[in-house]
Amino acid sequence: MGKVTSVSPFAPETLARLTAIEGVAFATAEAGIRYKNRTDLLLTLFAEGTAVAGVLTQSKTASAPVLACRKHLKKGAARALVVNSGNANAFTGKKGAGAVDITVAYAVEAVGCKPHEVFVASTGVIGEPLDAEKFAHLLGDLAARAEPDAFEAAARAIMTTDTYPKLATRKVLIGDVEVTINGFCKGAGMIAPDMATMLCFIFTDAAISSEALQELLAEHAKTTFNCMTVDGDTSTSDTCLMFATGAAEARGQKPITKANSKKLQAFSDALYDLMRDLAVQVAKDGEGLSKFVTFEVAGAKSWEAARAIALSCANSPILKTAIAGEDPNWGRVVMAVGKSGEAADRDKLAIWFGPHCVARDGERAEEYDEKTVAAYMKNKEILIRVHVGVGKAAARVWTCDLTHEYVSINADYRS
Amino acid sequence: MGKVTSVSPFAPETLARLTAIEGVAFATAEAGIRYKNRTDLLLTLFAEGTAVAGVLTQSKTASAPVLACRKHLKKGAARALVVNSGNANAFTGKKGAGAVDITVAYAVEAVGCKPHEVFVASTGVIGEPLDAEKFAHLLGDLAARAEPDAFEAAARAIMTTDTYPKLATRKVLIGDVEVTINGFCKGAGMIAPDMATMLCFIFTDAAISSEALQELLAEHAKTTFNCMTVDGDTSTSDTCLMFATGAAEARGQKPITKANSKKLQAFSDALYDLMRDLAVQVAKDGEGLSKFVTFEVAGAKSWEAARAIALSCANSPILKTAIAGEDPNWGRVVMAVGKSGEAADRDKLAIWFGPHCVARDGERAEEYDEKTVAAYMKNKEILIRVHVGVGKAAARVWTCDLTHEYVSINADYRS
Repeated sequence: MGKVTSVSPFAPETLARLTAIEGVAFATAEAGIRYKNRTDLLLTLFAEGTAVAGVLTQSKTASAPVLACRKHLKKGAARALVVNSGNANAFTGKKGAGAVDITVAYAVEAVGCKPHEVFVASTGVIGEPLDAEKFAHLLGDLAARAEPDAFEAAARAIMTTDTYPKLATRKVLIGDVEVTINGFCKGAGMIAPDMATMLCFIFTDAAISSEALQELLAEHAKTTFNCMTVDGDTSTSDTCLMFATGAAEARGQKPITKANSKKLQAFSDALYDLMRDLAVQVAKDGEGLSKFVTFEVAGAKSWEAARAIALSCANSPILKTAIAGEDPNWGRVVMAVGKSGEAADRDKLAIWFGPHCVARDGERAEEYDEKTVAAYMKNKEILIRVHVGVGKAAARVWTCDLTHEYVSINADYRS
Repeated sequence: MGKVTSVSPFAPETLARLTAIEGVAFATAEAGIRYKNRTDLLLTLFAEGTAVAGVLTQSKTASAPVLACRKHLKKGAARALVVNSGNANAFTGKKGAGAVDITVAYAVEAVGCKPHEVFVASTGVIGEPLDAEKFAHLLGDLAARAEPDAFEAAARAIMTTDTYPKLATRKVLIGDVEVTINGFCKGAGMIAPDMATMLCFIFTDAAISSEALQELLAEHAKTTFNCMTVDGDTSTSDTCLMFATGAAEARGQKPITKANSKKLQAFSDALYDLMRDLAVQVAKDGEGLSKFVTFEVAGAKSWEAARAIALSCANSPILKTAIAGEDPNWGRVVMAVGKSGEAADRDKLAIWFGPHCVARDGERAEEYDEKTVAAYMKNKEILIRVHVGVGKAAARVWTCDLTHEYVSINADYRS
């Protein structure tokens, strides 16, 4: 791990408590892939009949595990998930694909399943060959001691520069049967859309087909993980997988095969809420952050345009450093709106920092008072709203500030 | 000025010496617009018949002076240029346009010209109303005491967070008549294409029509100023103007009206070279930099694609901080190539840090030696080359690293 000198000021005081999901079990190990004295290998087992869906990085230099997931997702069935931290197995050529093959082969033997039912994810340094023999032989032992009630241990095993594990849980009815959705993810730097911008694994006992699951996951990734950025840098390894064991069917839940089924509405809402929760947790652990920042853009021509403007703000180094300096430098918001290239009416543009309108009708607001807004900037959580005056669409993006600590963490990541 | 604590390590030991250009004269003043004890107002006078061309920011929130330049450029003639530093007169609504009108009116009176022959540029804080009455009345006095041999004083008056003035000069033949091209510019932060990414003024005594000048300037801006970035943040005020007094006609130079005239080839080459020189000077004064970095991308499908990949590298916070940390973290180059969205063949990708090949055929090069490449990273000037293996086009982008100092400068810019 890099020289992370402090825990995020937004680390939760208590972690979410995730209860067991029937048909899902975890085991972790200290394989010594890169880190010492911490877990870095996770095996997750799924009951037969588990459906799977996924969204993956749009990077043109995607990692070997991402390519394997893309292939295996086509069959829609999962029995095992193997995740390692410390090495991303990205840009590792044929050796990279070989390492995935070895991992899958050991998992097939340990679990007694087909190769396409094994999913793999790796996170950590890019470009270092990953020696799968170093850890894959442990999978048999892990399979033997996997247990359902181990979400927190699982979340900890996949961390890299994260300063806290990110967990979330929701319970919701499908018909009159209660189902659970649990999720955890990792991510702190090299975080940007598209797609899932990190590793994220979501589990449910609901009985939902992989096709329906895929539709729900992709839809909600758009407005949650893909509306969150730390540094605008897209990882080669972004992987978000969702697994549905279908165990709730035994308790009377009728299996669902269509994402637009009315019976799935509450589930869909809960899934969105859980994904938003996890996305915000990632932004709140942004490398070196001192402030959590939300940009809300309204009055745009389309959701895509609003998101592009919000991301232009959220990825601007010069604006993010001003926020770190508690300087209400709203001129830099104007700059970021301008550079997005999206339609905006300069003479209708309005900007708010928290409750304070700083600009309206294309110029500084009459009531603007530097001291008041400077005092607002002392808050740990900052909300900046922009109205661009050309339409009715809105979008929201979560990010953090850019601090000395970000530079320190990333200047020394590998040392 | 922000808390710039140190001068760029790339500040030239001696500045370029620019000789007078017939038909151009400068005067500067301490108008106290924002700064104390330094010049912040520049008036430049041009002889009658001076042609002008310009490229301006593509920002959707362009400043009032940029809008005025865009309008005045249509007539192609210049008699005066007024530049102030300390306040960008951007996002200042009707007041902003009013400040330009006042400035132009005073210049018209001081110089005895038409309003469309006056060009204006402002740089500094965005969003603060600019009180033109505070300085425009000085223009009469400035016009009276303008002198030709004052390029350095002019370059100093337009600086903001720059740590040194940026000057360049070239002499070249048109036919058998020697002409001079002089230029100076400012820029250190909020620097990115498109267009000119800063304030830049270029002067020549050559007799060239404004149409031909416009074509040359736009063509060379593409591969010079628009291939240079500090933080990826596009200014609201970017302005690059070029003035040709035509004084060389009296010495026998035949006026040129077509950019593609063979007689103009040497001039065009010299102009490119001067613009490249100035662009590199801006990157070498990037806010807080410790290293000057060149990205060369080859094997791309088009120049545009090669430039996009190079810019994706040059604007990546996580890669720029690694360079600041002298870490040869070439995995982050892979990431930046991947996130650009441009075509690249992962399995043919090759990367060099200086003379050292670190990756080839989509994986770490066999001869890669961490110590050797780490030693290379101690250099002040870093060259990173990438071959993406899908075509024959190449492009080059200049930038700098991202340091603690950048954060310090921009966290406290207005204090």
